[in-house]
Amino acid sequence: MRVKITVEYDGSDFCGWQVQPAKKSIQGEITQAIKAMIGEDVVVVGSGRTDAGVHAFGQVAHFDISRDFPACKFVSGLNYYLPKTIRIIDAEEVSADFHARFSAKRKTYIYRMYLAEREGAVYRNFALNIQPDTDIQAMDAAARLFVGKKDFRSFMASGSDVVNTEREVFTASVEVKGDFVEFTVTADGFLYNMVRIMTALLVKVGAKELSLSDVRNIIEAKDRNTAKFLAPAKGLYLSKVIYSR
Amino acid sequence: MRVKITVEYDGSDFCGWQVQPAKKSIQGEITQAIKAMIGEDVVVVGSGRTDAGVHAFGQVAHFDISRDFPACKFVSGLNYYLPKTIRIIDAEEVSADFHARFSAKRKTYIYRMYLAEREGAVYRNFALNIQPDTDIQAMDAAARLFVGKKDFRSFMASGSDVVNTEREVFTASVEVKGDFVEFTVTADGFLYNMVRIMTALLVKVGAKELSLSDVRNIIEAKDRNTAKFLAPAKGLYLSKVIYSR
Repeated sequence: MRVKITVEYDGSDFCGWQVQPAKKSIQGEITQAIKAMIGEDVVVVGSGRTDAGVHAFGQVAHFDISRDFPACKFVSGLNYYLPKTIRIIDAEEVSADFHARFSAKRKTYIYRMYLAEREGAVYRNFALNIQPDTDIQAMDAAARLFVGKKDFRSFMASGSDVVNTEREVFTASVEVKGDFVEFTVTADGFLYNMVRIMTALLVKVGAKELSLSDVRNIIEAKDRNTAKFLAPAKGLYLSKVIYSR
Repeated sequence: MRVKITVEYDGSDFCGWQVQPAKKSIQGEITQAIKAMIGEDVVVVGSGRTDAGVHAFGQVAHFDISRDFPACKFVSGLNYYLPKTIRIIDAEEVSADFHARFSAKRKTYIYRMYLAEREGAVYRNFALNIQPDTDIQAMDAAARLFVGKKDFRSFMASGSDVVNTEREVFTASVEVKGDFVEFTVTADGFLYNMVRIMTALLVKVGAKELSLSDVRNIIEAKDRNTAKFLAPAKGLYLSKVIYSR
């Protein structure tokens, strides 16, 4: 049977989602916890990778086990073996044609910032400080320029071997939520480092170092060299993965 | 000269504000950083203690140094020596009659909660999970019962040797701020564990285990045994200390 799990994690102390030799990964910890719980070696397939330091409120993964088992038991069962920095928040049985990566229709990422001259203590691993005089409305206006079906080649980290760089962004906005200034973006898929590159541009718009028409030009240039900035991993959260019903 | 510093910290990995033998304290780390920076052994006097696991956005402390020195240099100077979990956010010279504890007129504490059935990964050290069906409006109504000049004996941890248990609460409310449900309370002073005891009661009101009149009765009882609950340290933040001008 196939099991779908929804996973929250604090990525601060991990090398990222994917297993890497001699490093602590989220995928690796979950694989070990399944082995400890039911004695089976499984392949844990995530909806996508997240880099070192990136967090998730709703990463999704699937794995197959060789016998019938009440899927809901994987919540408390795996949490017993997992470190407190990784929590299974939901588990359910799915049909054999569900695939955490290929069945995903949309993903939402959040990038968290807070207004402070210098990096603080409490949010040091969880958000990026931006200057108190940042123009948040301008950031929001710039974020909305990302909406639509576009070639996002300018927003792909160099070194990625992806060929089709067209993606559809459904919503993108910057809002104040409590202490945080949050960039929230939903798309049918993301290129490597796309949200962190977008965020770095938005921060420059907020600091009045870039204008809205600069952002428009960068999108239209379809050239990574026009947007060679990258916001740090620590502010990024994979918020949600949406599947068709 | 006397120096006043404002300090932010993530209290997760400390035994609390106050120096304790063979343990890592915030006071101890700051004392060592001052020694490393200017070579002087000073006594760092805080506005009050915070327990293990309690955080601060605006703890205030003072210390005396034997020579003249530009006070603002203590911001980047001390941050260089301090761990990333403690940040000096402001430093200024004050007159010799300023005292971080005795000159304080008001303090504001925040207690952070979030709606989730189980403890999550990202907020595990920074907020308390409360059930998704919590009645937040009822919590707010109960919080407002704390406002006024009252004998808060019911809200003092047993073992405290404080005699005068009257305090004036200026404002108290529960509000949704982004992902968090925040209890914010400002008073002229707080008894030991007062905010954590208040929070535990509010959570019970939100869960409909206590009514507003139960809270009224607990306040009027002036007896710690009527409110023998304590919210965990991790959600508590010393937000601000206010001094007269």
